Amino acid sequence: MNSIDYARENKQKHLDELIDWLRIPSISTDMAYKPEVQKAADWLVDSMKTAGLENIQLIESPFDLHPLVYADWLHAGEDKPTVLIYGHFDVQPPDPLELWDSPPFEPEVRDNNLYARGSSDDKGQTFIHVKAVEALLRTEGKLPVNVKFICEGEEESGGRTLSDFLPKNKELLKADVALVSDTGILSADQPSITYGLRGIYYDYIDVTGPSIDLHSGMFGGGIDNPLNVLGHIIAGLKDLDGNVLIPGFYDDVRELSAEERALLAQLPFDEAGWLAHTGASRVWGESDYTLVERLGARPTLDVHGIIGGYTGEGGKTVLPSTVHCKVSMRLVPDQDPEKIKKQFRDHVLSMAPDTVTIKFGDDTHGSIPSITDYSIPPMKAAKKAYTAGFGKEPVFMREGGSIPVVAEFQEHLGLETVLMGFGLPTDALHSPNENFHLPNFYRGIETSIHFLTEYGKA
Amino acid sequence: MNSIDYARENKQKHLDELIDWLRIPSISTDMAYKPEVQKAADWLVDSMKTAGLENIQLIESPFDLHPLVYADWLHAGEDKPTVLIYGHFDVQPPDPLELWDSPPFEPEVRDNNLYARGSSDDKGQTFIHVKAVEALLRTEGKLPVNVKFICEGEEESGGRTLSDFLPKNKELLKADVALVSDTGILSADQPSITYGLRGIYYDYIDVTGPSIDLHSGMFGGGIDNPLNVLGHIIAGLKDLDGNVLIPGFYDDVRELSAEERALLAQLPFDEAGWLAHTGASRVWGESDYTLVERLGARPTLDVHGIIGGYTGEGGKTVLPSTVHCKVSMRLVPDQDPEKIKKQFRDHVLSMAPDTVTIKFGDDTHGSIPSITDYSIPPMKAAKKAYTAGFGKEPVFMREGGSIPVVAEFQEHLGLETVLMGFGLPTDALHSPNENFHLPNFYRGIETSIHFLTEYGKA
Repeated sequence: MNSIDYARENKQKHLDELIDWLRIPSISTDMAYKPEVQKAADWLVDSMKTAGLENIQLIESPFDLHPLVYADWLHAGEDKPTVLIYGHFDVQPPDPLELWDSPPFEPEVRDNNLYARGSSDDKGQTFIHVKAVEALLRTEGKLPVNVKFICEGEEESGGRTLSDFLPKNKELLKADVALVSDTGILSADQPSITYGLRGIYYDYIDVTGPSIDLHSGMFGGGIDNPLNVLGHIIAGLKDLDGNVLIPGFYDDVRELSAEERALLAQLPFDEAGWLAHTGASRVWGESDYTLVERLGARPTLDVHGIIGGYTGEGGKTVLPSTVHCKVSMRLVPDQDPEKIKKQFRDHVLSMAPDTVTIKFGDDTHGSIPSITDYSIPPMKAAKKAYTAGFGKEPVFMREGGSIPVVAEFQEHLGLETVLMGFGLPTDALHSPNENFHLPNFYRGIETSIHFLTEYGKA
Repeated sequence: MNSIDYARENKQKHLDELIDWLRIPSISTDMAYKPEVQKAADWLVDSMKTAGLENIQLIESPFDLHPLVYADWLHAGEDKPTVLIYGHFDVQPPDPLELWDSPPFEPEVRDNNLYARGSSDDKGQTFIHVKAVEALLRTEGKLPVNVKFICEGEEESGGRTLSDFLPKNKELLKADVALVSDTGILSADQPSITYGLRGIYYDYIDVTGPSIDLHSGMFGGGIDNPLNVLGHIIAGLKDLDGNVLIPGFYDDVRELSAEERALLAQLPFDEAGWLAHTGASRVWGESDYTLVERLGARPTLDVHGIIGGYTGEGGKTVLPSTVHCKVSMRLVPDQDPEKIKKQFRDHVLSMAPDTVTIKFGDDTHGSIPSITDYSIPPMKAAKKAYTAGFGKEPVFMREGGSIPVVAEFQEHLGLETVLMGFGLPTDALHSPNENFHLPNFYRGIETSIHFLTEYGKA
């Protein structure tokens, strides 16, 4: 039996194992769930042992945050390249819970999709490579390339532990290329390889007016209201057409070349299906760019959460003291999160009247945007692997999300990253009813086997 | 012993009784507390019996909301006027609980103030008149005027039950004047009589974009964000200088006469103390009007609460589906809440782009603004009563809050209202650490006795 046969014969077993992992609510943004993130790490360690990986280490966070998991298999020979495989086992919070059709941590298969928080982002995709290694080792006794795994539990909450670990462990993590599966493909029938990712800068704004909540009848018209002020600040960050209004925001944006615009225009992107999935009335944004360009190659700004004043049932005539807002900017090459942070904060402060005080977040995070050259050998191996795994040649595309680790691998380890995604636009990442398309899970394991094999021939 | 002596000798007993009433969390805006509002009504019934009132009735709500309490004493003689005394026994929600120095429903006396939700608004003030009646009946066996009480449990939540009851019970409630204690005086040393109240229109805005929460990396820049849109809507409702931007909003505002501006300018209003209490950096608002004018005689607009997107700990890159906002407008003569409602909604809809849908509240409420002629006999009696009760002649002022029942007494019963307030600007109404200044509680009982006595001579 070869490794592909092994993968096909063990589909149900692999699914059952993944479901077991998904039952652990490893929410890294809320420290109340710290023991659960630890449990998810322990589970991965056990799974790696089963797969036949070696030197497995659970590395505690020096910041009392979440652990890392390292493992390797290094017997392919010195002439063979080394692949550093990255994944994460933490998940986004599942709120709002009432919108899930089945509980987020009680995985359920419906219509060939596996519904659970973390199913696609990123336990399912991480698990694919563990199972590919297992299939190769069980059937062939060896891997075609040397493999190292580094997995984290803070991808959804800033990745501080890994950011600290990388520059201090260059020898341990030394490799020829990084492999990251935390992105998607265009559709179940059209695989794609992401060569560009947006960066991000995420910040928090607290607006404080009076020191206590006041009665709007007695004070309204005489004391300024932080919620009204916040409305003006938000309106001043981005106009209704999608143009960010922060001075200097677009200064460092690398304009798309005519060649790249032509390449992106040829993508078989299902705009109608994409829109239908969102339930929005229409696509929207900067009118000078196509939707594909806006999503992958243009920066933007979004408010992610506001809470302030009275939010219970019914009406309360309160003039609130402090109100809270979360906002992020998606960045593209060559925008720098640190420079954007300053521009953003200066602009917010310039808009705030002297009736309020502004406090920004202490634990903001940023990641720089990235682009990988699509002509390097591991990218070519990835192209062949998808063609074999999915029966169709992949297209190259940019993606709108942020994977901070890609920029960090470049900076600290000098590694280019192959983004080998298996998600779909309908996976509902970060949303209620997150799911992973099961054919992509199974094909993903085969594609990973093909990649390791093809890259071993290079 | 006369009635004033009785009030003075029973201070501690009256305080203990009030504390007992304040332990009941009669929050009318949240139907989970319906049994508690009922308990507060039952408590008032018992207290009225003790006071010697007659024909006490607990009137159930035909809408399954909160009950009314009626009582009277009608043996003063046909030549004596009848006073209809109004109060309410429901309270505002106590959130945010963590900002209370002592629990809102465990009353505590500190520095001569009684801290509890409802202590000033309005159980404490309602109780004053029950105790005044008790003092007169226990010591003199009779009241100088005929008295009717009508108390409700929905003042903080729209007052639907009383609004329905009033026009259907004109004979039962027939009187010569209404007496309402649900306002404040300028300071503990300077009593005041409020002759004008602002009205209100309160509404809710839900903004919906996509039908599910989306990942801002995958969709940001391509799908509009309801939180960003809400910011633009709020910014378009009122400018940063306090001018409401709704077209037609000021059309029906009765401009202040030179005489009234002069009268208001003479009020001994402690602006520095008022500001210090709020903790805000400065007073604020329409530059063409004084602070006193802005608070009592000018309309305004305030956002009272927003909740939308991810509001838990840390960051989540969500593009939310639906976000919620509460907003009210304080109105002055001759603005009409129904007309303002239409202007407000038209303006919000005109600002909303076609990427979102807007839903307004089903249970909005409004009350028309009111002014009482300060030369009528009961107003003169009130002036004498305060002079006797507080040892200082009261001033006449307008107040910024809304007491819908005042307009309804005028409309349905043809009654002018004497607003006999005993609260202070530092009472923290609707805020954490609401309190009632105990000297005002005791003087209030004496002032009520004086009022009934003086009005009986008129």
